[in-house]
Amino acid sequence: MAFIVSPSFPVDRSDFHAAWNALQTHYEQTKNHTLQQLFADDPQRFQNFSRRFDGFLVDFSKNHLTSETLTRLLDLARAAGLETAREMLFTGGRINWTENTAALHVALRNRSGNPIEFNGQDVMPEVNAVLAKMQTFAENLRSGALTSTSGRKIRTVVHIGIGGSYLGPKMMIEALAPYTLPDAPEVRFLANIDGAEFVTCTRDLDPQETLFVVATKSFSTPETIINARTAWQWVHQAVSNETDVARHFVAVTANRAAAEAFGILPEAIFPIWEWLVGRYSWASAMSLPVVCRIGFAPFIQALEGAHAMDRHFLETPLEDNLPVLLAMISVLYNNFFDVQTHLVLPYSYHLRHFPAYYQQCEMESNGKSTLRDNTTTDHHTAQIIWGESGTNGQHSFFQLLHQGTRSFTADFIGLINPHHPLDTHHFELIANCFAQTEALMEGRNADEVRSKLLTAGMDPAVIEAILPQRVFNGNHPSNTLLVDRLTPYALGGLIALYEMKTFVQGVLWGVNSFDQWGVELGKELVKGIHAEQQALLAGEAADGGGRNPSTRGLLAHFAARYARPA
Amino acid sequence: MAFIVSPSFPVDRSDFHAAWNALQTHYEQTKNHTLQQLFADDPQRFQNFSRRFDGFLVDFSKNHLTSETLTRLLDLARAAGLETAREMLFTGGRINWTENTAALHVALRNRSGNPIEFNGQDVMPEVNAVLAKMQTFAENLRSGALTSTSGRKIRTVVHIGIGGSYLGPKMMIEALAPYTLPDAPEVRFLANIDGAEFVTCTRDLDPQETLFVVATKSFSTPETIINARTAWQWVHQAVSNETDVARHFVAVTANRAAAEAFGILPEAIFPIWEWLVGRYSWASAMSLPVVCRIGFAPFIQALEGAHAMDRHFLETPLEDNLPVLLAMISVLYNNFFDVQTHLVLPYSYHLRHFPAYYQQCEMESNGKSTLRDNTTTDHHTAQIIWGESGTNGQHSFFQLLHQGTRSFTADFIGLINPHHPLDTHHFELIANCFAQTEALMEGRNADEVRSKLLTAGMDPAVIEAILPQRVFNGNHPSNTLLVDRLTPYALGGLIALYEMKTFVQGVLWGVNSFDQWGVELGKELVKGIHAEQQALLAGEAADGGGRNPSTRGLLAHFAARYARPA
Repeated sequence: MAFIVSPSFPVDRSDFHAAWNALQTHYEQTKNHTLQQLFADDPQRFQNFSRRFDGFLVDFSKNHLTSETLTRLLDLARAAGLETAREMLFTGGRINWTENTAALHVALRNRSGNPIEFNGQDVMPEVNAVLAKMQTFAENLRSGALTSTSGRKIRTVVHIGIGGSYLGPKMMIEALAPYTLPDAPEVRFLANIDGAEFVTCTRDLDPQETLFVVATKSFSTPETIINARTAWQWVHQAVSNETDVARHFVAVTANRAAAEAFGILPEAIFPIWEWLVGRYSWASAMSLPVVCRIGFAPFIQALEGAHAMDRHFLETPLEDNLPVLLAMISVLYNNFFDVQTHLVLPYSYHLRHFPAYYQQCEMESNGKSTLRDNTTTDHHTAQIIWGESGTNGQHSFFQLLHQGTRSFTADFIGLINPHHPLDTHHFELIANCFAQTEALMEGRNADEVRSKLLTAGMDPAVIEAILPQRVFNGNHPSNTLLVDRLTPYALGGLIALYEMKTFVQGVLWGVNSFDQWGVELGKELVKGIHAEQQALLAGEAADGGGRNPSTRGLLAHFAARYARPA
Repeated sequence: MAFIVSPSFPVDRSDFHAAWNALQTHYEQTKNHTLQQLFADDPQRFQNFSRRFDGFLVDFSKNHLTSETLTRLLDLARAAGLETAREMLFTGGRINWTENTAALHVALRNRSGNPIEFNGQDVMPEVNAVLAKMQTFAENLRSGALTSTSGRKIRTVVHIGIGGSYLGPKMMIEALAPYTLPDAPEVRFLANIDGAEFVTCTRDLDPQETLFVVATKSFSTPETIINARTAWQWVHQAVSNETDVARHFVAVTANRAAAEAFGILPEAIFPIWEWLVGRYSWASAMSLPVVCRIGFAPFIQALEGAHAMDRHFLETPLEDNLPVLLAMISVLYNNFFDVQTHLVLPYSYHLRHFPAYYQQCEMESNGKSTLRDNTTTDHHTAQIIWGESGTNGQHSFFQLLHQGTRSFTADFIGLINPHHPLDTHHFELIANCFAQTEALMEGRNADEVRSKLLTAGMDPAVIEAILPQRVFNGNHPSNTLLVDRLTPYALGGLIALYEMKTFVQGVLWGVNSFDQWGVELGKELVKGIHAEQQALLAGEAADGGGRNPSTRGLLAHFAARYARPA
């Protein structure tokens, strides 16, 4: 274990190693206990291993843990400096040390009225000024006070952004669809550089009634800038002069100069800040389309829900702290049980993109190998996060979960009260959610299968022939998270819960959760490849620039087969 | 290795073990060779380890293999009985032995004019009769000859189906969007039981102009039947009598009796067959909405593309056989390098749901632990399949791919010729695809980082402080698949390529790729849980029925918090 001498918060290495080793010893002693046995040993498991907060119930009793495991996990969290790190996160400390800055997304939803300082300055006035600007803009857009150059009302907002400038607002608009205002514009997203997405997105739109939000912190993300340029031309075909075109664009960015150079009007720029990491930016002006769609007050409720979860995380003892518990359970599986993948399974159509949202949050935050002391990790960091909305997954990959050879962990998310009146559907949906966690845990052994099939009247000889195919090993752990109702407030809390879980994991694994150096190399290589591609298409003899023969072969094949449009 | 004494095709156990052991020995000797080293050793790697067929290029040179590895992998495939199994698949053999039937999806796209027999009967006349019925129906729907009860044209087709009755047609309609006919109806999909999906799907539709396709092989899939019942009521509100309601419904099913009992008109039933497995059914009447959308002739082209790939798989020596090569490379990583997850990364907006489609194909087919001889496997079977369209993933989870601690393999899929005229977008998209495979393979070591940053003018002291954070280990393998153009023909070939890859894997791993016993247990448990849920909501004291305290606790919490709609 080379671990944690942090430039941002110091950790006593020997304390940490002692806590890790104690957990390792405990794990070795208990790793073969089955979930069924744990329930038999403690009929109070549900009471002992579930927690409630603010409309959430988290049941983590279907996991390979006892009270002692929990104690040791929380000892490890303390020894990793979690409490210090948490304090830093909330007080503008330079927790993103590789970029020498804070990660102040908690300020975006700081509804306490208290200041949060960074570099000796309270950031709240700026945060609140942008919120007010979003409110005015969205209200004017919906009322028709803000019109296009032709005097027509804006009917469609196209949000151009990718990654952290996209996944949050998209997930939120779907999650909060029942809160859509009657006079709201349609919102579409344009993320991929693929021209097919641009064509599909704009095909049936009228430029006179369309507004583009160009969302990029750096205002240099290639996908976003290229899409924005094409959008500009697309509007220009319908609108006579550049000044009028500009009235169809707003920007969300930390790079005001680049946005203005692009042609965005100064008053149409919604600032974000250097201290804001893209994947944690949903509570900023990145959600301008969300405010256009559901209104300002519900958006503020989402911030309030997140703020309540932030405070819960900051103030609640670790034993009852939802993000801490979820994170430490993931550490147990990741680093002791050696489980490589984690499923997020919302039994909710509205949360169908929540797995993709959280996939970015954990994998981009914690998918790293270099620790805070610049050594290379010798333990695993982030898992592979995947998932699908229930019950869809049951008719797809659940076969492997039940009878395959892979280990995994899973969060099942259920909503208690739906927004629709179709009770029959809802009861069946929730029953499926619970049935899957039960089936994964309990399995069904050969004796049970035999007895079931005999009762069903099957020929004993046929039973023996088919029996092994119908056995389920069970003993698969899962968490179940129940949400009273998916209000804006609850959604804010849900997002913050998973964000803070990710933060805790990052502290435990010793990585900086707020940088993303791993995306740089591909970005750099694309320039040379693009140049060689163009040279080949122009019929020039490209020298390959020392490039490997595989990439060269692919480029040559592309150039040979590509037919320029007439 | 307990492996393969198959009731369906016999395999010489000692041959298989010998081939496996030879590969194991070779793996041990070569496992530490880096990809960079392999390219240095063989400048002809691209030529040696890429194959072309029918508009496809598969470059597998960026993998940990040499000619000897390939020889040993193909020896293993032969020893596993692949050639016999392949023959069985194409000739109606009972390859789905646990259900004592064939898996005859190849018959759906058998464009050879030759018969395919099952149970002594040629299935082709039936297959072709259903195709003709689909053609007539779709043409009448588009022309307006087929009208709703009010005499109006059908403007929307809602396809109700889940899993294999859903993922194929949905993926195809998106992939072939450029082929949409001008007079085509809109097609929507209704999969999830969640009532929110029903409400969202139908909210803005006029029942008088809507037709429902109820797609379920058994006609008993709970999600589909409950959605269909709600749809029936929804139409009934607008249409006076049951007979008229029925004119808004068609069924795709192998259970004609159940469909008629539901109320589907006999002439509105499109048959499928017991020998057809849901996840392999895209070429059947399950694609009725595809035919409505793009027309019959392009759909036939998709069948022709699949048929060409089927024949390629059946007739080409293993050395040049695309599905066999992709499958055996996956066996190498799965069973020797112990890689648990495989990414599918189409750099194409139109193929954005291909990862979800293939996820079901492999994980439901091969996510099993019981072998053909009824013993439990001691090797791994299917991997976890996940992915996202490029370039979106680059701005999300690629951080972990480049700098995380997890091993993975990946298929990058690129389209050479787009359907749109936005060259700038397309060149950038393809350059990104190639750049990522290069970055993953080559990485960037500390010396390279230092030299880059010095050239960029960074302070040497700062460089040393940040250096380890900017290192990429590289050596991550990938396949690249290039497709000349995503025509219906090419899409058919692409699907068949992955289907046959899955088949080969199943043969190698010794599982039945065509059953899915693992979905049964959850289905059974849901009944008892549903009953207990209803009892609790009615205020009855539920006894729990021996249920575990976690599920009981969740049920009690649900009942306590659920507020019935007024």
